[in-house]
Amino acid sequence: MSVSDQERLARVTISVVAEPGDVRCLGLTRELGGIRFLEVLRDQPDLRPELRAAAGRLAEVQPERVLEGAVRRGIRFVVPGDDEWPSSLDDLAGAGALHARGEVPAGLWVRGPLRLDRLGAAVAVVGSRSSTGYGDQVAGEVAGVLATAGQTVVSGAAYGVDYAAHRGAVAAEGRTVAVLACGVDKAYPAAHRQMIDHLAEHHAVVSEAPPGAAPLRIRFLARNRLIAALTQGTVVVEAALRSGALNTASWADRLHRAVMGVPGPVHSAASEGVHELLRGGGASVVTRGEDVLELVARSGEHLLDVRRAPDGPRDGLTIRARQVLDAVPVSSPAPAVSVARVAGLGLDEVEVLLAGLALDGHVERLPAGWRLGGGGRPTIER
Amino acid sequence: MSVSDQERLARVTISVVAEPGDVRCLGLTRELGGIRFLEVLRDQPDLRPELRAAAGRLAEVQPERVLEGAVRRGIRFVVPGDDEWPSSLDDLAGAGALHARGEVPAGLWVRGPLRLDRLGAAVAVVGSRSSTGYGDQVAGEVAGVLATAGQTVVSGAAYGVDYAAHRGAVAAEGRTVAVLACGVDKAYPAAHRQMIDHLAEHHAVVSEAPPGAAPLRIRFLARNRLIAALTQGTVVVEAALRSGALNTASWADRLHRAVMGVPGPVHSAASEGVHELLRGGGASVVTRGEDVLELVARSGEHLLDVRRAPDGPRDGLTIRARQVLDAVPVSSPAPAVSVARVAGLGLDEVEVLLAGLALDGHVERLPAGWRLGGGGRPTIER
Repeated sequence: MSVSDQERLARVTISVVAEPGDVRCLGLTRELGGIRFLEVLRDQPDLRPELRAAAGRLAEVQPERVLEGAVRRGIRFVVPGDDEWPSSLDDLAGAGALHARGEVPAGLWVRGPLRLDRLGAAVAVVGSRSSTGYGDQVAGEVAGVLATAGQTVVSGAAYGVDYAAHRGAVAAEGRTVAVLACGVDKAYPAAHRQMIDHLAEHHAVVSEAPPGAAPLRIRFLARNRLIAALTQGTVVVEAALRSGALNTASWADRLHRAVMGVPGPVHSAASEGVHELLRGGGASVVTRGEDVLELVARSGEHLLDVRRAPDGPRDGLTIRARQVLDAVPVSSPAPAVSVARVAGLGLDEVEVLLAGLALDGHVERLPAGWRLGGGGRPTIER
Repeated sequence: MSVSDQERLARVTISVVAEPGDVRCLGLTRELGGIRFLEVLRDQPDLRPELRAAAGRLAEVQPERVLEGAVRRGIRFVVPGDDEWPSSLDDLAGAGALHARGEVPAGLWVRGPLRLDRLGAAVAVVGSRSSTGYGDQVAGEVAGVLATAGQTVVSGAAYGVDYAAHRGAVAAEGRTVAVLACGVDKAYPAAHRQMIDHLAEHHAVVSEAPPGAAPLRIRFLARNRLIAALTQGTVVVEAALRSGALNTASWADRLHRAVMGVPGPVHSAASEGVHELLRGGGASVVTRGEDVLELVARSGEHLLDVRRAPDGPRDGLTIRARQVLDAVPVSSPAPAVSVARVAGLGLDEVEVLLAGLALDGHVERLPAGWRLGGGGRPTIER
C-alpha cells in the first residue's frame, strides 16, 4: 500500500470535518496532503474564516473508530494513491469556486465488489426525479445498451431517471454505480433501500460524505461533480428547468466530458431543461444508447453510419429507370411521349423502361397513359 | 416595367420547355437572359444532350397564349427584373448540380394578392405528410407565433405539417405562402383544393412550373429549394428519415439560412429525421415560435432570455439564510448546533435564521431538531 495509515486516517478526519466539495479544505488537502493540512487546521493561529468551522470539529473526530466502524459494515475508504483510486477524479483539481462546490475529494467511501479503478469506460445517465413514463423508459433503454456494450452506468439513487438507469443496467447484467449525497450506509430516499443494498452487494455505492452523513442540499451539489468526473460523458434524459441533472451536465462540460441530452415532446415540462441544454449548443442530441456510445467512444470505436431509412423499392433501379420513374405523373396518367419528354430520353428507350417498371409495380398503364403504380407511389419524396 | 414583353415571353417559353430546377437551362437563362438562351436552343447545331429535350419542345409552345390564359385565371408571371421579384431567390445563382435540381428559376407563377417582394421576414415551416397529432399541433403553434410576430410563413401544400402550418398562420391572421410542385391552378393533393384556393384568394400560391403542370417527383425536389431560398430559415417540425422536408433543410443550410428542428419523442418515427438533422450539428433545437424568431432575427431583435423556472421560494432569501437552509437535513431532524457546524456559521446567528426560515415554512422544528419544512422540501435541487 503506497498510502500510509496516517495519511488515510488524516483523510478520514477531513472527510468528517469538511463538507463534501469544500474547495478550500479539499484544495489544501490536495496540495499539502491530508497530514499536513490537518496540522495547518490544528496549529495555525490566524485561520481564514472558511477553515475555522472545520477546525472547530477536529476535537470530536476519532478517525480510527470511524474507519473501523465503516470496515465492519463492509465500507472501504479509497484515497488518492490507492490502487483503487479512480484517476478521472483528479480532473477536479482546481475546479470549483469558493462559495460553490468543487475539487478532488479527500477520499471516497465505497460499498460493493466493483472496484473504482475497474469502471472502464463509464457514462452518467441522470435526470429528473419527477420523470414521466417516457423518461423512465428511455433511461432504462439507454442504460441497457450502454451496460451491454460494457460501459459502466453511473447515476444517483433518486426516484425517476436515476432508478430507471440502474434498473436498465442491472437488467442487462452490466455494471452500475450509485453516487450518494448521504453516507453509503444510508438510503435516501428510504424507499430505495432495497435498490441501494442490491447495488452495494453486486456493484458499487459511493459517497464523499462519511457513513452516517445525512442528505443535505450542498451534498447533492457536491455529489453531482463526482458523477460527471467519474464518467466519459453525461446523458440527461429528462430534466425540468431547475433540475440538478443540469448541474451534473454543467460539471461534465467543465471537465471536457461529452454532454448529451435526450429530446422529448416540446410541451413536456420534464423535457424543458434538456431542450434548453440542447439549445445552448454545448450538448449533443442522443436518441438511443448507440448514439451515446458513438460520442463517448475512443476514436474509431462504435462509429455509427448516418441513420438511413431501409432501402426503398426505388433503390434497386438503374439511373435511367429512375429518371423515367421521376417523370411519371403521381395522379393523372400521361402518355409515354410526354414521360419521355420530361425525362429527356428517347421514346423507344422510355417505352422499354416503362414496361420494366410496370412489371415491378412502380408504374401502371391506364387507357390514358402511365402513372405511378401502387408500389411506386408511397416512395415518392417531396 | 423594366422587363421587356419579349424577355417575359421568352421566360414563359423556358418555364414550359425546361423542367423546374433544370440547372443547365436555368443557368444559361440567368447568364444570357431568356431571349438569348432561346436563340441558343433554336439555332445552335451541336446542342449538348441536356439541352436537346428542351429544344425539342420549343415548336409547340405559344407563350402569348400561355401567358394570356394564365392572366385570365388570375395568375401572374413574375420574372427577375420585375418589382415583385423576390431578390432572395438570386441566392440560388450557381447553386445545384447537373443531375440534381438548382439555380434561379426563369420566373414564378403566382396566384394571390400577397406580392412576393412584400414577404418581409419569412420562415419556412415544413415537415412530414404523415405527421402525428403532436407534429400538427406544434406546426400550428409555431406558425401562429411567427405570423403574429409579422413573419410570413412559407410551406408546401401537402397533408400534415404543411397544412397545419398554413392553418396556424391563417388562424393568427398572418401572411402565408404555399409553394407548389404542380401548376398554381392545380391542387395536389386534391383534398387541399379548398385550402389552396383560400391561400390564392388572401395570400399567395406560387410555382415554378407553368399552369397545368402535373406534380412530378423532380418538381417537388425543385420546389424545395424555392421554399428554402424565399425564407430566412427553415423549421422542420416532424420528418421521417426519407422526408422531403430534410431536402428543404439541406437547401436552407446550403443557402446559409437558419436550419431548425423541433424535437419529439425518441420512439416516434415521425421525429427520427429531425433528430438525425439535429445530431448532425448544423441545425438548432427549437421548441416554440419564440425560439425561431430569435434565430432568424436581425441582430438585437427578438432576443430571448435563457429560459428559467419561475422564482422558487429560495430565491428571496439572503445568502446567509440560504447557507443555513442548505445545511438543514432533508428527512431526519438535526439540532441547531449541528446545522451551524455544517453551515460554518455561529450558533446564535443560525438560531435566529432558523426561526425566520420556520416562519416561512422553509424549515420545521421537531423535538429532535430542525429539518426542511413542507415549503422547503420540493425546491431542493439535486
